[in-house]
Amino acid sequence: MRIKAAVLEEFAQPLTVTDVDLAEPRAHEVLVRLVACGVCHTDLYTASGVDPSGYSPTVLGHEGAGVVEALGPDVESLAVGDHVVTLFSPQCRECEHCRSGRTNICLAIREQQNKGYLPDGTTRLSRDGEPIRHFMGTSTFAEYTVMPEIALAKVNPEAPLEAACLFACGLSTGLGAAMYTAGVRAGSTCVVFGAGMVGLGAVAGCRLQGADRIICVDLSADRLGLARGHGATDTWQAGEDIVERIQAETGGFGADYTFEATGRVDVMRQAAEAARMGWGLCTVVGVAGKGETLDVIPRWLIQGRRIAGSSFGGVRGRDQVPELVERYLAGEIDVDSFISHRIKLEDINHGFELMEAQDGIRSVIGF
Amino acid sequence: MRIKAAVLEEFAQPLTVTDVDLAEPRAHEVLVRLVACGVCHTDLYTASGVDPSGYSPTVLGHEGAGVVEALGPDVESLAVGDHVVTLFSPQCRECEHCRSGRTNICLAIREQQNKGYLPDGTTRLSRDGEPIRHFMGTSTFAEYTVMPEIALAKVNPEAPLEAACLFACGLSTGLGAAMYTAGVRAGSTCVVFGAGMVGLGAVAGCRLQGADRIICVDLSADRLGLARGHGATDTWQAGEDIVERIQAETGGFGADYTFEATGRVDVMRQAAEAARMGWGLCTVVGVAGKGETLDVIPRWLIQGRRIAGSSFGGVRGRDQVPELVERYLAGEIDVDSFISHRIKLEDINHGFELMEAQDGIRSVIGF
Repeated sequence: MRIKAAVLEEFAQPLTVTDVDLAEPRAHEVLVRLVACGVCHTDLYTASGVDPSGYSPTVLGHEGAGVVEALGPDVESLAVGDHVVTLFSPQCRECEHCRSGRTNICLAIREQQNKGYLPDGTTRLSRDGEPIRHFMGTSTFAEYTVMPEIALAKVNPEAPLEAACLFACGLSTGLGAAMYTAGVRAGSTCVVFGAGMVGLGAVAGCRLQGADRIICVDLSADRLGLARGHGATDTWQAGEDIVERIQAETGGFGADYTFEATGRVDVMRQAAEAARMGWGLCTVVGVAGKGETLDVIPRWLIQGRRIAGSSFGGVRGRDQVPELVERYLAGEIDVDSFISHRIKLEDINHGFELMEAQDGIRSVIGF
Repeated sequence: MRIKAAVLEEFAQPLTVTDVDLAEPRAHEVLVRLVACGVCHTDLYTASGVDPSGYSPTVLGHEGAGVVEALGPDVESLAVGDHVVTLFSPQCRECEHCRSGRTNICLAIREQQNKGYLPDGTTRLSRDGEPIRHFMGTSTFAEYTVMPEIALAKVNPEAPLEAACLFACGLSTGLGAAMYTAGVRAGSTCVVFGAGMVGLGAVAGCRLQGADRIICVDLSADRLGLARGHGATDTWQAGEDIVERIQAETGGFGADYTFEATGRVDVMRQAAEAARMGWGLCTVVGVAGKGETLDVIPRWLIQGRRIAGSSFGGVRGRDQVPELVERYLAGEIDVDSFISHRIKLEDINHGFELMEAQDGIRSVIGF
């Protein structure tokens, strides 16, 4: 079929919204009609050419939600009409990692996905007979996509898909960092560095876990205002003295849990040092620049601090994205406040501009 | 009473073995007659003057074992004649940390101990009426010492004290890093960097936890030979390509648990990077130089690696040192192989020389 899609033709150039061909789903694959898709930093990161593993041409987009339109052979877990959230981080439930119970990083299709192919090593996307590679296994800046069934989370159809799509990446990453990676204990003191999509999700995750005190640190008063809405009990302007301030307000000890959601390595170091002596856990979620390192004084570790990180917040997509969507439907997560702009696929480059200008939290494409 | 002790008079100078005065134990304090004491790097570190928190004059030594000779008022947990191991890391069982179950870092007497005083803010050591400060709350390079009862672990009197003393620091630190801080799971693959006292203890700890494969990495063939005796299944010469080699031998993933016991930050980075994608835990135990940092690429954390550290291996001294000594008596830990030299207190400076020359694992002073 012929579909409209936003193609990355050349790095550091605007995306081209154009027609491409999409082949039918093969075994264990599903055709999804996209209804909504968030515009995420990772899309921009790859479009910019900075991502060393990037390639072109490709159809970008990975924060999608839609409706199952058709099934390839041997699909067992989905039916036509199901509402789904796309998962760049699949869950096969069968590989060593999925069975381990210790990580959400599924190995089943990782290698092919990283190269831009579906699991059988080919693409469903093409133009004039030339294959176009998929992006993150999702390619959701498009009217339709074909994806493996293990990379689709079936969610409650009562959830508006423009809200559900945010669970495909940033929001789940933040929520999961607090809920699954860190496993915040009730009554804890938490600090979240950064109040973008991921940081705000972490704030909400800390609240859902029953944290007593949630300090959110950011440069923007607007974003800190949003953080209050998601459960932050304290909102602080970012600055160099932030570690001392956190220690001063926690009896000299530091916070039980800290979260880094800015991607800046100097902030990561603050997050590590602000974690509590004895058992504080610093969870790194932000993506740092190439070649940058988080520099930790070993003595801080010896004193009982720990540092962790996670991809997609440690969320097991097919099991836990539907659970998170239920909590949204139950009124426990305010998703609507994240949607700052509603745009059309044709406006995708404007969506990137808004993001670069840090205007709002999320632009969501409606198809 | 008048006792013989090794006094640090001036940094970077030999210790002076001389007579000092030791006052009677006060409330909650105990007089211990030392029978054996290991010579540890921390003693040398402070003697050298490099330790920024060091002071002089003081009686060094912290790896002691002996017999209770007298009790101050209100001592409840010990009796005259009990065999004890000295604990620079006490366990009061009452402070916020001890009650938390999340750390072994007891807060009860920390502040005074760090300054060189017993809990009431005074010293029992003096000379010509001038107070001499205690070291690590222990000062066991001496015929006798006075210590708080919460800093003494009562051990099985069947254990020879020259073996028991090693549980006062290095050996417990290594064992505990594997058993308590990391909590190594049976069937795991572990890598231990460094085959000194602490690293060998970590090797033994991994074995006791039921690890399948224990790779020990060191520069010295002699020490690697010892590592085999403690349970290492593989012994590798240290080198720059060690991370690649570990990955190559673990299907590209890395080791479930890695331990750093050298104090070199470049080795810490190897240990962090050699931990397994998905759930690998790197435990840092070595003490790095002042101002040095462990530099971690954040992406390695995002892929699911974690970094932890611990002091005294996370061992809760009064509860767990006696348990470890029982395992030694049961033949599960080969302590004798650590004792490379038996010396007299008068030979303490020779003990330091042996350590600087990396001659053997441990010199033990017999009183």
